Amino acid sequence: MSRRSFLARSAALGAGAYPAMLALNLLPAAPAHAFDLQPGSGQGKHIIILGAGLAGMTAAYELTKLGYRCTILEARTRTGGRCWSIRNGTAAAETTNAAQTAHFDNGLYFNAGPSRIPHHHQLTMHYCKELGVPLEVYNNVNENTYYYAEGKGPLSNKKVRAREVHNDMRGYMSELLAKAVDQHQVNTGLTTEDADKVLEYLRAEGGLDIDKLYKASARRGYLEAPGAGEKAGKLANPHKLVDIISSGLLDPDFYNVAEYSYELQMTMFQAAGGMDQIAKALEKRVAASLQLGAEVTAIQNQPEGVKVIYKDQKGTHELLGDLCICTLPLPVLSNVNHNFSADVSRAIDFVPYIQTGKIGLQFKRRFWEEDEQIFGGITHTNNELTQIFYPSYDYLSKKGILLGYYNFNEKAKKVGDLTYAERQQLALQKGALIHPQYPTEFEQAFSVSWQKQPYSLGGWALYGADDRKTHYRALLKPDKNVYFAGEHTTYLTAWMAGAFESARSVTAAVHSRLSDQHTIYPTTGTN
Amino acid sequence: MSRRSFLARSAALGAGAYPAMLALNLLPAAPAHAFDLQPGSGQGKHIIILGAGLAGMTAAYELTKLGYRCTILEARTRTGGRCWSIRNGTAAAETTNAAQTAHFDNGLYFNAGPSRIPHHHQLTMHYCKELGVPLEVYNNVNENTYYYAEGKGPLSNKKVRAREVHNDMRGYMSELLAKAVDQHQVNTGLTTEDADKVLEYLRAEGGLDIDKLYKASARRGYLEAPGAGEKAGKLANPHKLVDIISSGLLDPDFYNVAEYSYELQMTMFQAAGGMDQIAKALEKRVAASLQLGAEVTAIQNQPEGVKVIYKDQKGTHELLGDLCICTLPLPVLSNVNHNFSADVSRAIDFVPYIQTGKIGLQFKRRFWEEDEQIFGGITHTNNELTQIFYPSYDYLSKKGILLGYYNFNEKAKKVGDLTYAERQQLALQKGALIHPQYPTEFEQAFSVSWQKQPYSLGGWALYGADDRKTHYRALLKPDKNVYFAGEHTTYLTAWMAGAFESARSVTAAVHSRLSDQHTIYPTTGTN
Repeated sequence: MSRRSFLARSAALGAGAYPAMLALNLLPAAPAHAFDLQPGSGQGKHIIILGAGLAGMTAAYELTKLGYRCTILEARTRTGGRCWSIRNGTAAAETTNAAQTAHFDNGLYFNAGPSRIPHHHQLTMHYCKELGVPLEVYNNVNENTYYYAEGKGPLSNKKVRAREVHNDMRGYMSELLAKAVDQHQVNTGLTTEDADKVLEYLRAEGGLDIDKLYKASARRGYLEAPGAGEKAGKLANPHKLVDIISSGLLDPDFYNVAEYSYELQMTMFQAAGGMDQIAKALEKRVAASLQLGAEVTAIQNQPEGVKVIYKDQKGTHELLGDLCICTLPLPVLSNVNHNFSADVSRAIDFVPYIQTGKIGLQFKRRFWEEDEQIFGGITHTNNELTQIFYPSYDYLSKKGILLGYYNFNEKAKKVGDLTYAERQQLALQKGALIHPQYPTEFEQAFSVSWQKQPYSLGGWALYGADDRKTHYRALLKPDKNVYFAGEHTTYLTAWMAGAFESARSVTAAVHSRLSDQHTIYPTTGTN
Repeated sequence: MSRRSFLARSAALGAGAYPAMLALNLLPAAPAHAFDLQPGSGQGKHIIILGAGLAGMTAAYELTKLGYRCTILEARTRTGGRCWSIRNGTAAAETTNAAQTAHFDNGLYFNAGPSRIPHHHQLTMHYCKELGVPLEVYNNVNENTYYYAEGKGPLSNKKVRAREVHNDMRGYMSELLAKAVDQHQVNTGLTTEDADKVLEYLRAEGGLDIDKLYKASARRGYLEAPGAGEKAGKLANPHKLVDIISSGLLDPDFYNVAEYSYELQMTMFQAAGGMDQIAKALEKRVAASLQLGAEVTAIQNQPEGVKVIYKDQKGTHELLGDLCICTLPLPVLSNVNHNFSADVSRAIDFVPYIQTGKIGLQFKRRFWEEDEQIFGGITHTNNELTQIFYPSYDYLSKKGILLGYYNFNEKAKKVGDLTYAERQQLALQKGALIHPQYPTEFEQAFSVSWQKQPYSLGGWALYGADDRKTHYRALLKPDKNVYFAGEHTTYLTAWMAGAFESARSVTAAVHSRLSDQHTIYPTTGTN
């Protein structure tokens, strides 16, 4: 295989092959994620794309490049789907709540859907670059945020800085293990010399003293900061291990959200000015194909092609296409008439979606920065709020919107079942336990409950291991002339990368089927 | 004590008292770090300030507000001292190397001196805000950078992603400790119930499986990334613990630089456009007091006031002042005539300064981002380079400058003793072991060896515990009419915060002495 064909193939495969390329030291001369399919004889054929989220618009964008005629039907009067930023004037209703309108100050926003881009989601990064969407760091890791446990332990109902818990736990665990290794209480399987190196590592990792004990450590911050002259800084004693435990700070409420996970490791990015800038940039490229306010009511495979019935302000319409790409979230698709196979139908009806919600709270002062030196990052709590996200933009400016909660599952269901006013009240009341500045500084709120958003009806697909073998697989093949795409057709559920990867995958499949060009990737050519 | 007087006192004390204020829930109505000294009868008195670094300029800025007449003598033809960004046209000589000029592209720069602002350095943040210097996140933590050990182990002479070492070590250590706790091989002093919670914590912390064993984990990245369709992602096996050890990846070369330290924990910031923007903003405020190109040769305490002798292009001059604030780095001051006390004189001559150097390498392509998905952060190596810093600005743009090395002590001495060309050659040769793109993409270099920079002669003061009791204390009191300031008069050596804190401290001391206002902080007043 020539270098060029290797690269072309890798690009077509998406991000997955990239580490392999690096391993082979095949550093690309062309942009890493150029999608170089060659136009074929399918040009002019009509592809109906359902949903103008990132997956649908990306598929339309790529297929249009290849000469296909695309129509995107989007039920909402906006594009982007879950890639949605709430700003002044944003108006939306929920299934059980009437429309609300956001009254945030100009320039302020929050991302109701995806808010973070991992650096290794290369297709997301690629499209931001290709579409000219500027990125900025999303500061996901911040040791100065809080753990706040409602409960009965001595550290409960207090805000404890993340750095205190992190370093105390590392310290105590390293001390315990160092003792066990030192006294040969645990079999490391190492030589004495290597065990000594592990001991030195534990001392460094845990911030232990010369006797390998964990005592006061600057890593967990100061009672009184060091400064000029005689101000050497005053350290506090670590929290007691039993206090950390009995206050619930080791509970899954806190440790299931570890920033160790691959997707949440720094470096992370966000689109400057709101994640919806990605959707808006795509929208510009596919404007000619786009029909907003067009709600699909039926999808019918025909002997040749596909028929889609949709309604808009003018009435009900039929649209005929050669092929269809359906990116509708499964709970939405479940309410659409179709003649799909039993396997596909079951997948549509039975794959569960996460319940999740966010509230944006605008404050007239960035007290979390001014008073508490919290710049970005996440405070974790075991109450309904689950997480408070501090904004990673406009640091040190006057006003700001923070995410008053970002919760999931049972907690999100409970909060989602409230009215907007009740959600706001809950966010303010529980938030004030952590930030007493809330009552005096609060200005505006806007909440989103994804399971109640028409045309979404959930956060993202939640596959169990069994579902991946059954329902998931059913959606990977086309049902006759209908292809499925969207985050739910990937192993990157919940991420924008899932939309992009699925769009590429479905584009390649559609093109391969409609084009007479049997060899998509030329294997000849100069290198 | 009234709330207002508490706040005024806290502000004067600097950042140290701030956590206490928070603890007392005294959230300030006024800006946290307003420096509200009241003008006194000292107005118009003449303060001679030696050095136009951040400490000297900040002292002049604050004293001028109080009505003093300041003269800043600065030997260099620029302000900022070690707060220095290298950009196109920057020209400078070293003590043993003739002048070099930087030929970087416009808009590209690197910070030769301080490059990071911890979020808890509140005075630094305060002055950036007050002076209108925009800040942006300095992305100090990046799990996608490398560990590169020159050596003989199986992981030597290879680039290993930081996330692999971090997660493998957390995994192995958690597994070992979980085993010891589970089998009661180590005395935790905990109840069974609490020990079970620790076991669950270890499972979460180490990414252990259900049997509390560390196996393949997505936290350490994928061999093949997950994607659309059947691409579930392929995990690699962890590195073997013995391989990590024998390859030197637990050596202090790697673990002394832990990002766990309080000063290097995220969130970190940098001044947008170069750290010298802070110096330039201060320079504007003190321009009327500033004499550049004025090299001090003698400082003489007089029965009344102080006499400073300096030379400039026009010749030698005498300047008389009521008081003097000397911010010259000690190795520089050591070459100036003075009539200080024996204690002060010894401190000036004997406090060691760190040897440290950086090289900025401009590349025509940001290959570390495009090919290797490294956005900011630091690669660590045990060779002379010590660290490679990737830029935290202009992500995804065309060109970039990375720090080819940032080293200290013996390694910095060795590299500093080379010519500019030899340093460049070393940086390129060693750097190419990690980034084979170096030879084809390299364009320009500029290196700085701080111990060879005239008027600096070192990186920062390196006090041992004993020095803090003797030499350090000698510099905290004025020597008759001469006060000392700069990072070397603080417990924040090496940080810009040291300059700011010392400037405030010396301003308060000078003002207290010259003003007839015995109570600086009014204890009456409305709250």
